[in-house]
Amino acid sequence: MIRIAIDAMGGDFGPEVTLDGAARALERQPDIQFIIFGLEDQCLPILEKYPKLKAKTTFHHCEVAIRMDEKPSQALRRGRYASSMWKSIEAVKLKEADVAVSAGNTGALMAMSKFCLRTMANVERPAIAGIWPTLRGESIVLDVGATIGADSQQLLDYALMGGAMARALFEVRRPTVGLLNVGVEEIKGQEEVKEAGRLLREANIDTIEYFGFVEGDDIGKGTVDVVVTEGFTGNIALKAAEGTARQIADFLRASISRTWVAKLGYLLAKSAFDRVREKMDPRKVNGGVFLGLNGIVIKSHGGTDGEGYAAAIKVGYEMVRNGLFEKIEADLKKYHTLRVPPSGAQEETAQEI
Amino acid sequence: MIRIAIDAMGGDFGPEVTLDGAARALERQPDIQFIIFGLEDQCLPILEKYPKLKAKTTFHHCEVAIRMDEKPSQALRRGRYASSMWKSIEAVKLKEADVAVSAGNTGALMAMSKFCLRTMANVERPAIAGIWPTLRGESIVLDVGATIGADSQQLLDYALMGGAMARALFEVRRPTVGLLNVGVEEIKGQEEVKEAGRLLREANIDTIEYFGFVEGDDIGKGTVDVVVTEGFTGNIALKAAEGTARQIADFLRASISRTWVAKLGYLLAKSAFDRVREKMDPRKVNGGVFLGLNGIVIKSHGGTDGEGYAAAIKVGYEMVRNGLFEKIEADLKKYHTLRVPPSGAQEETAQEI
Repeated sequence: MIRIAIDAMGGDFGPEVTLDGAARALERQPDIQFIIFGLEDQCLPILEKYPKLKAKTTFHHCEVAIRMDEKPSQALRRGRYASSMWKSIEAVKLKEADVAVSAGNTGALMAMSKFCLRTMANVERPAIAGIWPTLRGESIVLDVGATIGADSQQLLDYALMGGAMARALFEVRRPTVGLLNVGVEEIKGQEEVKEAGRLLREANIDTIEYFGFVEGDDIGKGTVDVVVTEGFTGNIALKAAEGTARQIADFLRASISRTWVAKLGYLLAKSAFDRVREKMDPRKVNGGVFLGLNGIVIKSHGGTDGEGYAAAIKVGYEMVRNGLFEKIEADLKKYHTLRVPPSGAQEETAQEI
Repeated sequence: MIRIAIDAMGGDFGPEVTLDGAARALERQPDIQFIIFGLEDQCLPILEKYPKLKAKTTFHHCEVAIRMDEKPSQALRRGRYASSMWKSIEAVKLKEADVAVSAGNTGALMAMSKFCLRTMANVERPAIAGIWPTLRGESIVLDVGATIGADSQQLLDYALMGGAMARALFEVRRPTVGLLNVGVEEIKGQEEVKEAGRLLREANIDTIEYFGFVEGDDIGKGTVDVVVTEGFTGNIALKAAEGTARQIADFLRASISRTWVAKLGYLLAKSAFDRVREKMDPRKVNGGVFLGLNGIVIKSHGGTDGEGYAAAIKVGYEMVRNGLFEKIEADLKKYHTLRVPPSGAQEETAQEI
C-alpha cells in the first residue's frame, strides 16, 4: 500500500482536476491509499462522483487554499499549519503519507516544503528534478528552478540525487550523469561547473557513471540519463524547450489549415502526429520532483488536466515504490564529502523564504 | 558598395561552401564587393567556377587555415597575423572591409576578433547576438556564448547593443527589450538581472522600450524584439531550443515512415511541412553577430551549406547597410553610465584568450 497525500485545492482548476486525476491514478495503481486535503464544500460533492476513490480516501477539511499567484512569503504567512498545501506536506513529515502531490504554485510549494520538511542532512539546497522527453526515452534534468546558482558541492549533490532518481524511475543500475555546460573549449563554463566535474571524476561513484560535460542540445538527444545544472539555467532551458515545442505545433497547425490538400494529408498522417504529440506531451511527463528534503513532494503542472495529474501521482507512486528516498539517503551518506554547513545555515533557509 | 571580408577556409567544408555562399549572396545583393582570404590552391579553382563572383572579388592568399577543433589559444598562436580568419577580421580593422564573415570555430573567431579589433570604448565585454525564429517573426537573443556571466552594467550594454541591432535588422524605431529570468516571484533571478532591470527602468532610454523580465518560453513566442541574458544561459537556451526542434523533426520522420497511409498524408501535407521547416530553418537565420568590438564580425554555422552561408553574408550586409555599428556607438555614448573599467581590463581580456 502506497499512501499519497493530495493537495486538492492546488492548480488552476482545483478539485475538479485533482480528484479526477486521483481517480484515474487509482484505476492504474490500485494499491494507493489517498489522504486528501481541501475545502470540504468544494471537494466532497466531487468525491461523491468517484465512489472507488472515496473508498480509498481519508478526507481532511482545510480552511485555507493557496492561490496560484500568491507569493511564497505570503503563502507561508497565510497558509502555514492551515492550508491544504501545508497539510499534504505535513502528512509526509508525520509519516502519515509516503509522498505529497500538489499542482499549486511552485514558489509557495517549495517554500512550504522547505519549511515543513527541512533539507536532508548533508544537503544544503533542495532541487526540483524534471522529467524530459528525449530521442532515447526520458531523462532527468535538475535543478529546474528550486534555487538560483549552485556551487560545485551542490552540483555534486544534485548529481547524486538525480542519479538515485534515475535508478528509481528508469530502473537502470548505474545511470549516466552529465554536467550542463557551454561548448567552447577554453572558456568552458563556470568555475563551479568545472570544479564539480573534477569532483565527480575523482569521487568515482559506483551508483552513477559520470559522463562529462553536455550541451543544451544533448538534453533532447538523451545523451545522458541525468543532466545536472543550477536552477536558473535549468529553468530557462526547460522553458525554452517547451516554448519551441509549442511554437512548432502552432506553426504546423497554421500551415496545415491553409489548404484543403494539406488538411487531408494531415488527417491521413494523424496517427503519426498523435504519436509525436504523445511523446512530447507535457502531461505524460508531468511531475517535478522536489529532492533533498526529508520527504518527497511532487509538483504537478498547474494548468494540467486529470490525465496529467494522474501522471504526476504516478511519478510519486514510482518514487515511493522504488525507494527513491532511501536511495538518496544512502548515496549521500556514502559519497558526500562531509562538509560542515556554515553555522546558521538552517536559519538562513528559513529567512530566505 | 558594401565591402565584405570572407574567411574562405572557415567551416566544416571550407571554400566549397563559403565561395558558393558568396556567389549566391552576390546574386541577391549585387552591390557587394568581396575581399576573400584563403589558401590559393584550394580557393582559386573554385573561384573560376563563379565568374561573376570573381569579378567582384579581391583574393588574398593566406598560409594558415584555422581548424574547427582548434582551441582559441592555439588558434591565436598559430593563426594570428597569418590565417584567413585573422586576415578577414584585420580587413575590418584596416577599414578595407565593412564586415567580416567566417564559419570558423566560434572560440577561435571570438578570440581573434577581440585581439584584433578590441572592445569598443565603454564596453567591457563583447556579446554574440543570435537571431531566433519566433511566432511573431524573429527576435534577437544575446549573449549566446561570448562570455560566461555578466554583471548588471554588462547586461545593460547588451540591451543597448541588441536594441541597436534590432533597429538595424527589423527596422523598428524602438524595439522592446526583455531580461531573461525565472518565473518564481520572490526568488526572481540573479542579483545582476534584478539590478539590470532597475537600471533599464530608470535609464528611460529612448532607443529601446524596456519590457521587463521574460521567461524561457517567451523567446519562441516573440514576446520581445530583444532578449538579454549572459552567455552561459543564452548558449544553453539556444541549444536546448535547437535540440528540441531537431528532436520533433526526428520523431515526426520516424513516426510518418511507419505506415503508408501516414506517408501519403505527409506527401499531401508536404507544402505545409516545408513552410514550417523553412520558418525553423537554422540556415535562414544563420549568422551570430559579434557586438561590442570595433567592427562587426559575423559567425556562420560551421556545418551550413552555401544557402546558409549566403544568409550569414546577408546578415552582415544588412548590418552595414543599416548602420549597426554607428547606432551602437551612438547609443552607448549617450546612455552608458561612464563606469571606469577596472585598470588592466584590456590586459585581462588578452590573458583570458
